[in-house]
Amino acid sequence: MKKIMNRPDRFANETLEGILRAHPRDLKAVGDDLREIVRANAPQQGKVAIATGGGSGHLPVFLGYVGEGLADGVAVGDVFNSPSAQQMYNVTRAIDGGKGVLYLYGNYGGDVMNFDMAAELASMDDIRVESIRVADDVASSPKGEEDKRRGVAGLFFAYKIAGAKAETGAELDEVVVVTNRALANLRSMGVALSPCIIPQVGKPGFTIGDDEMEIGMGIHGEPGIDRTKLQTADQIAETLTRTILEDGPYESGDEVAVLVNGLGATPQEELYIVYRKVDEILKEKGINVYHTYVGEFATSMEMAGMSLSILKLDDELKALLSAPAYSPFFSQPQL
Amino acid sequence: MKKIMNRPDRFANETLEGILRAHPRDLKAVGDDLREIVRANAPQQGKVAIATGGGSGHLPVFLGYVGEGLADGVAVGDVFNSPSAQQMYNVTRAIDGGKGVLYLYGNYGGDVMNFDMAAELASMDDIRVESIRVADDVASSPKGEEDKRRGVAGLFFAYKIAGAKAETGAELDEVVVVTNRALANLRSMGVALSPCIIPQVGKPGFTIGDDEMEIGMGIHGEPGIDRTKLQTADQIAETLTRTILEDGPYESGDEVAVLVNGLGATPQEELYIVYRKVDEILKEKGINVYHTYVGEFATSMEMAGMSLSILKLDDELKALLSAPAYSPFFSQPQL
Repeated sequence: MKKIMNRPDRFANETLEGILRAHPRDLKAVGDDLREIVRANAPQQGKVAIATGGGSGHLPVFLGYVGEGLADGVAVGDVFNSPSAQQMYNVTRAIDGGKGVLYLYGNYGGDVMNFDMAAELASMDDIRVESIRVADDVASSPKGEEDKRRGVAGLFFAYKIAGAKAETGAELDEVVVVTNRALANLRSMGVALSPCIIPQVGKPGFTIGDDEMEIGMGIHGEPGIDRTKLQTADQIAETLTRTILEDGPYESGDEVAVLVNGLGATPQEELYIVYRKVDEILKEKGINVYHTYVGEFATSMEMAGMSLSILKLDDELKALLSAPAYSPFFSQPQL
Repeated sequence: MKKIMNRPDRFANETLEGILRAHPRDLKAVGDDLREIVRANAPQQGKVAIATGGGSGHLPVFLGYVGEGLADGVAVGDVFNSPSAQQMYNVTRAIDGGKGVLYLYGNYGGDVMNFDMAAELASMDDIRVESIRVADDVASSPKGEEDKRRGVAGLFFAYKIAGAKAETGAELDEVVVVTNRALANLRSMGVALSPCIIPQVGKPGFTIGDDEMEIGMGIHGEPGIDRTKLQTADQIAETLTRTILEDGPYESGDEVAVLVNGLGATPQEELYIVYRKVDEILKEKGINVYHTYVGEFATSMEMAGMSLSILKLDDELKALLSAPAYSPFFSQPQL
């Protein structure tokens, strides 16, 4: 296990200590618990607050999307583990500005259970909470069972849209409506080329041949839908793009935003080689790309591989996507 | 060689094709040559222009720093190879806005030779050119021979400072003076844990044991100063921070900017674990951190490892560092 760290059992906490030391103007811990992090200016009165959370090991997911035009707070678990309901509840209290709180997170069992418990605790404080689970990974469950799908890099678009809407001063119901519309228009799918190692486990979560890749693998190493010989960038782009387009509501004449996400060890150069073909296919289909993001937006530590996410836009989603955002991990001026 | 690509000989060009397809509002090619890329709004009249260049395989270096408040154009070579003098000259002509051009690039032999030739060609067109070579890697040559040092992730600070100064409407000489002052205040050093593979070579550039790391290795795999057993994050942070502080002009009471840079495969979590200790050491020394950057700012494709860069600030450098910047690869609001 070749990691730059001190002790495996301190991996998540020392990451958080580093983040809080690096970005004191932007982020702060709630009380003494490093695992509960909110914007430095939280709570903001008169704004719907957005809480997220999940396991460590996916930076910039989840903590990296706490910032202006994004989420307000996050509960952070150990590597690939859910934070507790109590931590989520504490974050909820720390960010509530009187207009209610949206829980926006990936559709994983532990997170669902704990966020639901946190919502119950919050309701006893008369904090109104709504929950939206991001379930964008088309490879994780078939069409018709979309609610069983996992949340992957499409989380980025969910934070961007919900966060921008909340900044407008919208009501909680309005933030929920537009975020749900974005998620209905969003699909993702990825490929993995190598495993990653959970520090406290010390060995890879799965094995894969030197000439193999796995299509549709999850960001914790959940099994995908096919294991094949390593394909070319163009073949990978074809498989991901066509599967997403067949699954989702995309049609000729549509305008979309595209995210090509690196899982950790895959260089940005390779992501752009994939995007080259994705763009070509979308143009062939008459689909117009409004904006493209390429980089590491949701990772699995040192896993090699990438994912593609496509968000179909309408006028409101386009305006929200274009709004400025700032966190130490993601920054965008007005487009 | 487990890379997501099509053909090794098309690696650099297909990366560039993907970048131009992804970011048409921001970047354009000069004529038909993908290897000559400039801001979409180039040339800008009345602004000193900044040209850079170097081999592919280091994204966001070099191309990723073409943008507002950064550089104006870039000549791109094949993986780890210098672009040609002709390409640099063509970029120079495409970005010159009548106020002269600064060549700002890493101190590597091929690049130096070609940029010097390009400057001669430009002088025949009455375009005034000044050159600054970034040589921030303290491990690459001893004190007293600073001009032999290689340029590594400190390039980011060079672009940020020079680019911000040029945006103020400053004259070429003024941009040169402040950039040289920044470079005198800048030091970097890194460690490598694994090699990377040049696509057209197909095998790693060096070998390193599963339990080893190399201190001071260059971003093309140039030999470092020591090969040791893999150290803890705290030990690595100690070695890098103390070596940099001893080499440079840093004193108690100083204010600095810090960059913890990932070389490619090393997760951001590990970079923050290193930063945690760097911050502790700087505080012990009475050195105040004004702003911290953590992420992939200069890579070697899928190499594992990281580097530390420290820039000592004065009032002007602080204002320039704080100015907004935007490229598809790096974005910062006014700090």
